[in-house]
Amino acid sequence: MHERRFLGVDPGLTRTGLGLIALQEGRIAFANAKLIAPASNQPLRDRLHHLYREVKACLLDWQPEVMVVENLIYARNAQVALKLGHARGVLLLAAAESDLPVVEYSPREIKLAVTGYGGASKEQMQRMVQAVLNMPKPPETHDVADALALAICHAHRARGK
Amino acid sequence: MHERRFLGVDPGLTRTGLGLIALQEGRIAFANAKLIAPASNQPLRDRLHHLYREVKACLLDWQPEVMVVENLIYARNAQVALKLGHARGVLLLAAAESDLPVVEYSPREIKLAVTGYGGASKEQMQRMVQAVLNMPKPPETHDVADALALAICHAHRARGK
Repeated sequence: MHERRFLGVDPGLTRTGLGLIALQEGRIAFANAKLIAPASNQPLRDRLHHLYREVKACLLDWQPEVMVVENLIYARNAQVALKLGHARGVLLLAAAESDLPVVEYSPREIKLAVTGYGGASKEQMQRMVQAVLNMPKPPETHDVADALALAICHAHRARGK
Repeated sequence: MHERRFLGVDPGLTRTGLGLIALQEGRIAFANAKLIAPASNQPLRDRLHHLYREVKACLLDWQPEVMVVENLIYARNAQVALKLGHARGVLLLAAAESDLPVVEYSPREIKLAVTGYGGASKEQMQRMVQAVLNMPKPPETHDVADALALAICHAHRARGK
């Protein structure tokens, strides 16, 4: 059975987490992860360019079949939403240029899929991601853990669970 | 004296206005304008891609020396800010890829530069842009008028007024 690869992305101007998982014969495995953190003293324009280039490189190297992102209904305030929007726009553009489908899940759907509990904390998510993917230690940052959780959520759907 | 070209951009997911003005021997003139309106029934990913391609094409054709945008301290709410952020991120990326400097002005600075009055209405702005640029009729949309106003604002600074 062909291996399928799903890329979860947790966007942010300061830190963007990428998490790649593989689904083969119904089993989910960690495949790759990356944290993109453009220098915060650069102009916004250049931080977005950095983010864009790094994501494009990962899409090329990792060849996922889908990009999985959170739908952002719950942005805390306008300033946070605006910054997030800049990063998210550039990531979606990178997906479009690679003709990569984008699927979205709500924070609650993601938590439910990974922990069985819609209200899980950041720390619980990190440990559950580690457990689900059989990783020797938890993902180093919440951003990467959240990105992997997105990919896991989609894998659950893809294998019909 | 060399002609200098300034590109004002008023970003939006639904409509993005571009306005190009030329500064030569201290005089400001209308040079070009475009309204980019990706079909709203497309996936967000594809609307951003459409916007990006159109802006890149204009940068190539029009060869401005700077991109002028509003700084967005006054976004009304998180949902508006998020959508705006997507479009703005893609535009700033296009600038970065063309190594085009980006300058920002506040809505008040723009209104002051164009109308001499920080609280001008959309309609006043449209008519003042028409007058300043000696256009036979007002710019067709507020988006284009606002983009031209941004470029005018920067031109005032550039010629030292």
